[in-house]
Parts: sequence; C-alpha cells; structure tokens
Amino acid sequence: MSKAPIEFFFDFASPYAYFAAQGLEEIAARHGRTVRWRPILLWTVLRSLGLPPPMESKAKGDYMRLDMDRSARFHGRRFRFPTNFPTSAHLPARAFYWLEAQDPEAAKAFARKAFTAFFVDDIDFKDAAAVAGIGVDETALKDEAATQALRAAGLEAESRGVYGSPFIFVDGEPFFGADRLPQIEWRLATAP
Amino acid sequence: MSKAPIEFFFDFASPYAYFAAQGLEEIAARHGRTVRWRPILLWTVLRSLGLPPPMESKAKGDYMRLDMDRSARFHGRRFRFPTNFPTSAHLPARAFYWLEAQDPEAAKAFARKAFTAFFVDDIDFKDAAAVAGIGVDETALKDEAATQALRAAGLEAESRGVYGSPFIFVDGEPFFGADRLPQIEWRLATAP
Repeated sequence: MSKAPIEFFFDFASPYAYFAAQGLEEIAARHGRTVRWRPILLWTVLRSLGLPPPMESKAKGDYMRLDMDRSARFHGRRFRFPTNFPTSAHLPARAFYWLEAQDPEAAKAFARKAFTAFFVDDIDFKDAAAVAGIGVDETALKDEAATQALRAAGLEAESRGVYGSPFIFVDGEPFFGADRLPQIEWRLATAP
Repeated sequence: MSKAPIEFFFDFASPYAYFAAQGLEEIAARHGRTVRWRPILLWTVLRSLGLPPPMESKAKGDYMRLDMDRSARFHGRRFRFPTNFPTSAHLPARAFYWLEAQDPEAAKAFARKAFTAFFVDDIDFKDAAAVAGIGVDETALKDEAATQALRAAGLEAESRGVYGSPFIFVDGEPFFGADRLPQIEWRLATAP
C-alpha cells in the first residue's frame, strides 16, 4: 500500500477547510498517512479560472450561512461567522510557508491556531500584528521566499484542477469539500 | 416529535439526486418519516436566479465527472454518464405530477424507474416515446394540469431558496446535496 502524504489544499479563510482539517488528520492517522497542508489563496485561483466567489448569489449565500453553522456543529468545531469575510488570507499563508521551511510541524501547529484565531476569536487576517500574534515573527509576513512559495502553491493547485477549498488529493485522486471526508476514508480503506 | 414529510426537490437529470434518493428514503424510514418527491427543472431556477449551470468550467466539469463515478459507487448505485447531458427533464417531471394526482406511490415508483432509465439505460429524456416507455401514457406528457404543477413546484422551490439538486427540507430546514445525507440523519436523530 502506498503511504504517500495526503495533500490538503485550502484557504485559511475557508470555513469548510477549517471544519475538515481535524477530521482529515484523524482519518489519515487511522490509515497510516500524513497530511501535507498546502495553503493557497482561493480568490486568485477563482479569478484566474473566471469563476465567481462561492457566495455570489443571495440564495446561495443565505444557504451557506446556515450550512456553515450547522456543519460546524456536525464536525464538532466552535465557529462564528467572521466579521471580515470574505478576505485575503495571504498573511497567515505566508507565515505558514515561512515556518514550514524551518519546521513543518510548527507550520501545522500555526495553521490550527490560525483557523481558531479567525473562526473563533474573529481576528482580521489583514492585520499584520494580529496575525503575528498567532505565533510568528512579523518579518515572516513580508518574507520573499514565503511569498514565492505561496504563489507556487496557487499555480500548482490551479494546474491540478483545484477550484475550491478544501481540495484534497489522495494518491493523486481529487476530493472537493469537507463533505468528501467519508469518501476519503472509504477510498483509504479500500485502496489496493 | 413532528412527523412532517421530508421534502425532496430534485431534477430528474441530476446525478446527485439519483445518488441520494434511495438513501434518503432509507433515512426517512428509520426515523418514521415519509419523503415527498418534488421534481423541478433546475435549469429554469438557475436561469431565473442568474446562476451558471453546475459544470460550466473545465476544472469543475472534469472534477464532477470523476466525482459522479466515485459517488455512484459510494452510494451503491449503477451509473453511466448520460449521452444526453445536460438536458431538460420536463417530460418525466410532467409524467410524475400526472401520476401523483392519481396515486402518489405510483408516481414515486415511476420516478425510481425514470432515474434508472436515464442513468443506467441511457434513454433520451426529450424522446416522448422513450419516457412513456418507463411506464406512463404518452398523453400524460402533454397534460396541462401536470405542466402547471411542475411550474408551480419550480416557483415554490425558487421562493424557498432552492438553487441546486437535490435540495431537501426537513421541518423547513434546507439541506443541499447528496453529501448532506449524514447531516439529515444527524438532524433527525437529534430533533426535539
């Protein structure tokens, strides 16, 4: 059985990525896999593909607000709809890649705290001091190598067909959405 | 505990409606509920809302083809991607409402057979003889009262925020997508 890492493309400002992250780690652990976290900026991918943002119509926006509250409870996550939403999560994403270059586990720990900071404590992801307060040096937020790593992740995501968040690859097979966790577990349980 | 019927808005040409239908009936039965099937024409609702069809971009279309094949296996349904897709399913939808006015159970039985005819036997939903062959008199396909019932269901769906298929209401609470079946079961199990 292949033990390649599961690839987890996500936007830090994506509620469904936040809902999925913990469950995905648990599923991976049950099947001897690790998860490689790959933050991207979904808005740059959607703009490049010519796709509208997820909540562009009233019917869809109204439903998604309700579905997010319910899905948070279903996945056992604390959640309140962020004041600053939608937003560009380039600061936490740069911090992630800056940390990852030194210590991938520290980057993951930061990512979990960043989700909580945004979806529970309601920080502004465009506020550098607030993002640094999650646990990273403020100089990381302007780091050129981290900025390039984030850009490269976005281009790779787009080239691999990513058009939403979370977008998860298991041995190259794509799964879109927190609601695909059961299919990911089923795939891992039945993998050759 | 309320025992109101679960409302199942769907388009006969929607793969995810087909994947969800059997599981939804099973969930409802486990919780002492019935399912009221409400076929609509999704394309008329999307046009009215100014929303694009679900597979409008290459990235999304490529993913959805893969996801449909996988979801069919996950839900235990036979499936092949229809030759005539997308399409307008007004003929089977009219047949459904024509039958329902006389015998709701006969309408449901027809609906199940219509899904199989389209997603397994690959019939053309615009071919009146083929649709009649599912098990309805061909005059039903032009019936004025059935046409009006279909139109009314579409307008009701739109007024209630439906923007996709399947769109399911449990005691008024909306659930969009085959992948919301686990949340529907969770809601029914925890309902007051």
